[in-house]
Amino acid sequence: MRDFLPADKARRERVLAVIRERYRSHGFDEIETPVMEDHARLHAGIGGDNEKLAYNVLKRGLDADAVRAAADDPAALTDLGLRYDLTVPLARFYASNRAELPAVFRSVQIAPVWRAERPQKGRYRQFMQCDIDIIGDASTRAEVELITATLDTLDALGLQGGSVRINDRRLLDAMLEYFGFPEAERPGVLITIDKLDKIGPDGVAAELRQRSSSPAAVDAFAGFLARERPAGAGFDEARIRAALPEGLDGDAVAALSEIGDAVAAARGARVPLEFDPFLVRGMGYYTGTIFEVAHPSVSYSLGGGGRYDGMIGRFLGQQVPAVGFSIGFERIVDLVADHAGDAREAVVLVHDQDVPVAQLAALKAAFVARGCRVRLERRPKNLKPLLDRATADGYSHFAAVRAGMDADSLELKPLG
Amino acid sequence: MRDFLPADKARRERVLAVIRERYRSHGFDEIETPVMEDHARLHAGIGGDNEKLAYNVLKRGLDADAVRAAADDPAALTDLGLRYDLTVPLARFYASNRAELPAVFRSVQIAPVWRAERPQKGRYRQFMQCDIDIIGDASTRAEVELITATLDTLDALGLQGGSVRINDRRLLDAMLEYFGFPEAERPGVLITIDKLDKIGPDGVAAELRQRSSSPAAVDAFAGFLARERPAGAGFDEARIRAALPEGLDGDAVAALSEIGDAVAAARGARVPLEFDPFLVRGMGYYTGTIFEVAHPSVSYSLGGGGRYDGMIGRFLGQQVPAVGFSIGFERIVDLVADHAGDAREAVVLVHDQDVPVAQLAALKAAFVARGCRVRLERRPKNLKPLLDRATADGYSHFAAVRAGMDADSLELKPLG
Repeated sequence: MRDFLPADKARRERVLAVIRERYRSHGFDEIETPVMEDHARLHAGIGGDNEKLAYNVLKRGLDADAVRAAADDPAALTDLGLRYDLTVPLARFYASNRAELPAVFRSVQIAPVWRAERPQKGRYRQFMQCDIDIIGDASTRAEVELITATLDTLDALGLQGGSVRINDRRLLDAMLEYFGFPEAERPGVLITIDKLDKIGPDGVAAELRQRSSSPAAVDAFAGFLARERPAGAGFDEARIRAALPEGLDGDAVAALSEIGDAVAAARGARVPLEFDPFLVRGMGYYTGTIFEVAHPSVSYSLGGGGRYDGMIGRFLGQQVPAVGFSIGFERIVDLVADHAGDAREAVVLVHDQDVPVAQLAALKAAFVARGCRVRLERRPKNLKPLLDRATADGYSHFAAVRAGMDADSLELKPLG
Repeated sequence: MRDFLPADKARRERVLAVIRERYRSHGFDEIETPVMEDHARLHAGIGGDNEKLAYNVLKRGLDADAVRAAADDPAALTDLGLRYDLTVPLARFYASNRAELPAVFRSVQIAPVWRAERPQKGRYRQFMQCDIDIIGDASTRAEVELITATLDTLDALGLQGGSVRINDRRLLDAMLEYFGFPEAERPGVLITIDKLDKIGPDGVAAELRQRSSSPAAVDAFAGFLARERPAGAGFDEARIRAALPEGLDGDAVAALSEIGDAVAAARGARVPLEFDPFLVRGMGYYTGTIFEVAHPSVSYSLGGGGRYDGMIGRFLGQQVPAVGFSIGFERIVDLVADHAGDAREAVVLVHDQDVPVAQLAALKAAFVARGCRVRLERRPKNLKPLLDRATADGYSHFAAVRAGMDADSLELKPLG
């Protein structure tokens, strides 16, 4: 968990403000939920491996007997936990507040989550997530709105050139059936395929040989995996079909193609989509399209999501279609150039010790009223470190203040 | 703990953006700390009664034996807790990061805190705090900057007419000595005086009679309390002296007067300060000036603070002057008029079922590019509830979309 110093915090808030404004333009409504949820809800199986990483909050008012009794039932020590993602809270929020939301609800959540992971570079125990979700729309319109809004947001952050890898869980299922993997083995096979980027086609084939009871299926799949694939641009029904095993088809192909056409229509000529028949994404709850957003400047994805039509229903006792996209805020904030930021004039007023506080207050008020950001500093023996510090903090000008001076008699000098 | 629906969340973010911008103008730098702090630090005695209200986080990896052993030592179950205020984290932050901060550090923190209070109207278990603090400045310049920035922020939120009640702990101490309360009793006497607004002068006198071993001190103080006080405006050295027991004086009077002059200089002719010799404020760590901000529209205070020169030193092993002001974000957000908000045009595009997704995507992109906020809606049988909902959500126009229409052929109609 990290402290954010002023420069970092200011950059994070600038990035958040852009994300907030862009998603709002695209018709998404921001909501907020409490950071704690009921322990039972956080451990209902929806969170996958993240459930194990949840921070649990100690129940209040436990006496010695209750603690002793909990030795054999640790769950009795806790009734609340810190959320490990924003999806479980969203499902709970939607079930609680559905009557007050539009029939198709487009939500944005920009908020921290907590996971008790072993600290490592780029992984934090508290980090921001930024999720958009569309609940109540079973059509591809939803995927198109998510993808378009996200690419537009990346553009607005100066990260032009983003692209989206896309697949559909239904095609993955059909593919595994096509190659003859027994149904019970398929979730495990997907876990292995998910490692393709890391361990390569040979690694995947080797691991599948360990995992599967059907060498024939593994051989057939490994052959397909090793196949030369047409590189390059374009995203249409023919190309999607060409990337799949001969003869494999389904509604998902038409849906992906429709998404491609619509994103192209929204974004102009460029079609920043790529069909990837081996894209899996980890979470078990996905039921349809799955996608990841990439950017040429980095090798890892900047976010991803998919359709999870089954999950909201678990909380509501009624089927509700849903699709979501989570952008990796912590990754994005590292990429965004530390440019301009706060564009207005920022002035340091360096005053002698004997300047009355009332004069300082009046001077500061005058510069604030002009739209400036203002910092007061007592003049130290050595001025340079003070001015260097102010320059680093984004101040653009300074002026020396002596007793009796008013705002008009100050001489502003540029910093840096 | 509360869910925030879109309209509430949008209002909260608008208020936060104004606060953030105003305090930044006044030279305050925003920082952020993790929501969890070490359990020991949260229970070091600085947090007063709030320490008892802390949520503790269950230690990870406890086995049955460790839980059993903790029956007689409950603190062994926890190593982290959720912060109950922003002052303890600030002191820890400053001690950790001092080398990278300016000599006089003006911080803003805008962040949630948690207290396990019995839920009641207007009290929440998770709520936002908004603190500004100046660390490293022992002069009244610091108080003046805090008060001026806060009044300016209230103005910017449409809450003009705010005023500040002010006192100094040193004057309170001198007053209790003046009336002859034994030193050991004085902290308790202050707790009683702090109830003046609630129980009145007679209530305070009655409670002091119970509490103090010196009936003479209580009688003398009660007489002073019952004294007619000159009502009305103005804040200067003579008036401060007149509000104190005859002959009581000290550096604090000059300091308060200097603060008054400087706030007047910053704010023009109006002096929104009132000296209140009975203002106590709860926290034991205050060492000098204490103040509360009030607004004519409400009877409770909108925030308060004071000087706490002793506390940072506890973490740093070195004296550092500090003064802070916390505004009651939850109270303020309820007062701020739900006006304009997002001023831009917001358009609902109501489309027939058969409009291709690509056409919808292009239309939406066209209106987003014009700077609008855009929501797509499938045309339902009954249009009215949909339009009412959109109006409530702040949309200003709608247009019917049929297959083949482009942005220029749509007819925008006003909503509401």
